[in-house]
Amino acid sequence: MLHACQQLEREGFEVTYLPVDKYGLVDMAELLHAIRKDTTLISVMTVNNEVGTIQNIKAIAKIAHDYNIYFHTDAVQAIGCLKIDVQDMDIDLMSMSAHKIHGPKGVGALYIKNGVRIDPILFGGDSQERGKRAGTENIPGIAGFGKAIEIATRNHIINNKKLKNIREYFIQKLKEKVDYIQINGHPHQKSNAIVSVSFYGIEGESIMMLLDLAGICTSTASACTSKSLLPSHVLRAMGIPDEVAQGTVRFSFGTNISKSDVDYVTDEIQKVVAKLRAISPIQAGRM
Amino acid sequence: MLHACQQLEREGFEVTYLPVDKYGLVDMAELLHAIRKDTTLISVMTVNNEVGTIQNIKAIAKIAHDYNIYFHTDAVQAIGCLKIDVQDMDIDLMSMSAHKIHGPKGVGALYIKNGVRIDPILFGGDSQERGKRAGTENIPGIAGFGKAIEIATRNHIINNKKLKNIREYFIQKLKEKVDYIQINGHPHQKSNAIVSVSFYGIEGESIMMLLDLAGICTSTASACTSKSLLPSHVLRAMGIPDEVAQGTVRFSFGTNISKSDVDYVTDEIQKVVAKLRAISPIQAGRM
Repeated sequence: MLHACQQLEREGFEVTYLPVDKYGLVDMAELLHAIRKDTTLISVMTVNNEVGTIQNIKAIAKIAHDYNIYFHTDAVQAIGCLKIDVQDMDIDLMSMSAHKIHGPKGVGALYIKNGVRIDPILFGGDSQERGKRAGTENIPGIAGFGKAIEIATRNHIINNKKLKNIREYFIQKLKEKVDYIQINGHPHQKSNAIVSVSFYGIEGESIMMLLDLAGICTSTASACTSKSLLPSHVLRAMGIPDEVAQGTVRFSFGTNISKSDVDYVTDEIQKVVAKLRAISPIQAGRM
Repeated sequence: MLHACQQLEREGFEVTYLPVDKYGLVDMAELLHAIRKDTTLISVMTVNNEVGTIQNIKAIAKIAHDYNIYFHTDAVQAIGCLKIDVQDMDIDLMSMSAHKIHGPKGVGALYIKNGVRIDPILFGGDSQERGKRAGTENIPGIAGFGKAIEIATRNHIINNKKLKNIREYFIQKLKEKVDYIQINGHPHQKSNAIVSVSFYGIEGESIMMLLDLAGICTSTASACTSKSLLPSHVLRAMGIPDEVAQGTVRFSFGTNISKSDVDYVTDEIQKVVAKLRAISPIQAGRM
């Protein structure tokens, strides 16, 4: 998203980056203040992919439309966790991805409200996907995405309850086993599929690698920038100091995770954190 | 490809469209004549997707490099049928697609010669695919494409022989059963996987639809424009009159097609053509 904006700037557009509060929420007053006469698009993620904070999408869409501005949301982290009604929320454009809801990788979708016209960015056969995206269609991928959406929608309430229970159990166990940590993101307005944890005095990258050796996949910042060494721009925007941001790991949950999985994971985190803190020059208790 | 060029023109580039001879071959003299001081890229399909003509890629790449111009080839129809050595042919950029060699749909590849720098067109995570293509990688698709390439390369010679035999048998049977037809493309320098046939006095679209009812999948022009009613720009460029181009059907072969399949297909073509010619106002013999 950040890089897409940088590309827009290279193409001559001006982009205003909105600040967020300490929970990662877009401030409505700041949004209103940032709107200009020539503002054409407001884009806000439904659920932040690093900390899980759920934005006030319906209110933001309302503001956008009050000023005749198109509203786009990246709902990749939201579908399957939240009930999204594009008509009720009055969303013009919504991005989705299959692999976040157990669908196949390599397939996504862009919802376009009837009447909203967008230019394609891929060119070739002009009759494919209504002229919006050239290329031989990935039929098995599209069918798989459709089925994944169907299953996710059908099981939405029960899945969300499962995720909530697992997330809460994970946080409870983690707090019992590891001290000097903080949970990032909004305390209530949040996705149940993600938890962002900062471990004081150590590096998230090292935690991630040692957990990987124990068969546990995690991520520092977002997966799409996890190979870069810069601190997360999301955590920075939330006012989290760099030294805390550096010690941050993102845990994502699926509905197939059991309490005994969480017991194992939190045991391993306890060992990894103890090992890293033993060799760290920074004392976690002094941060 | 045509639409990609139109997009370049919208972005301010000038595009010269090279003429081809009656076999669909790019004329080297015309190519040399079209080169300007500010020419930056020459792009020619390795195998034309409508008529199967194989271009003189190595010679074109040589000309391009003599003038310090990058050379790109769309080899989507070529991989699996032709042996392509990007080093020997000195290709800078080569496009490929998995689904043409029995790999999964939705996956392609762009070969980029070491040292050739290109700008991405998709933005987001900047660490994915070396910053050239943002987005969660389609791992199963990529793995499937790799396997498909491996199998196609291993069986290349035997597959090509099978295709050649089937193509020749198809043409022989077709000529026995149907009169007033012409085979388009180069007589020798051609892919064995495709044959383009013009049926005088009738519409390719109608032939395609009636064959579809008999369980035979064909295409008029290229599949990516098959829903459009315009005559093929490829056949037009080859100097084929519109009334002949309109009656053109493209047949593609796989290595799993048997002689008895060809017998069935040519029988059905015979019936379909007879049916359509009986109701056509144009007499095929007078064209």
